Amino acid sequence: MAQGTLRDFTFGTTMNLSAEWITGFVDGEGCFHVGVARHPDMSTGFQVLPEFTIVQHERDVQLLHAIKAYFGVGVVRKNHGDRMAYRVRDRRHLTERIVPFFEEHPLRSRKRIDFEKFRSVLLMMSKGDHLSADGVEGIRQIASQMNRGPSR
Amino acid sequence: MAQGTLRDFTFGTTMNLSAEWITGFVDGEGCFHVGVARHPDMSTGFQVLPEFTIVQHERDVQLLHAIKAYFGVGVVRKNHGDRMAYRVRDRRHLTERIVPFFEEHPLRSRKRIDFEKFRSVLLMMSKGDHLSADGVEGIRQIASQMNRGPSR
Repeated sequence: MAQGTLRDFTFGTTMNLSAEWITGFVDGEGCFHVGVARHPDMSTGFQVLPEFTIVQHERDVQLLHAIKAYFGVGVVRKNHGDRMAYRVRDRRHLTERIVPFFEEHPLRSRKRIDFEKFRSVLLMMSKGDHLSADGVEGIRQIASQMNRGPSR
Repeated sequence: MAQGTLRDFTFGTTMNLSAEWITGFVDGEGCFHVGVARHPDMSTGFQVLPEFTIVQHERDVQLLHAIKAYFGVGVVRKNHGDRMAYRVRDRRHLTERIVPFFEEHPLRSRKRIDFEKFRSVLLMMSKGDHLSADGVEGIRQIASQMNRGPSR
């Protein structure tokens, strides 16, 4: 890699991300979350919403687009104020792309435990657990144990 | 990599960090900082203090120790409250270990610009610029342009 001048540090169109870089970045900045929201249209009265997000200041939006391109799924949207978010909510995209990626490239921080719970919930959903009251209760218990780290 | 059970997700003594993982993690969580502090014992009246830090919640202190082991320099200390910090302040360690690492494994976020300024300051210090009033002023100007991202 070129060294030595500021010129080398411009941000070109090619942002060469690697699996290991993404794992490290997600260990720092990623979030695996499972929302359980009231939803009168669902037979259980609740909707289960797993999502994977990475939030960054808008100055690094290019990085979020590069991550989106890397995974080939998800969207980059405005979050709050001057913050942008990369977000994957589609269950098939989570199950077929995001989860296998982090199985193959394990997180090193305690966030790995959140990922493991996140994966369990997706597995339960693939069996239809989120469509029964008992299943939703089980998912809610797992979700309540996630993201108990410090607020960011 | 093994998959499927919680057992696989215990945190063993071996934390297998790679250069790319570290780059991704530092893009998220690292900080390159140059302090310029009043110091009556210095001929210029100021002391220049470059430092590289990574702050984490204490639950991930093991990760900071693994990063310290990876670089072979720096210390892990309590930061504020329940936060721990990996910190490298020794100028030789910064110049001979940290800077070359990030030259070889470039950051992808805008933090790369902070790194580049950090490197410039260390280069100026190696030429003794921090020992003259003009040099300190030049360093102070560079330092004032660093870490202008959002507060964390």
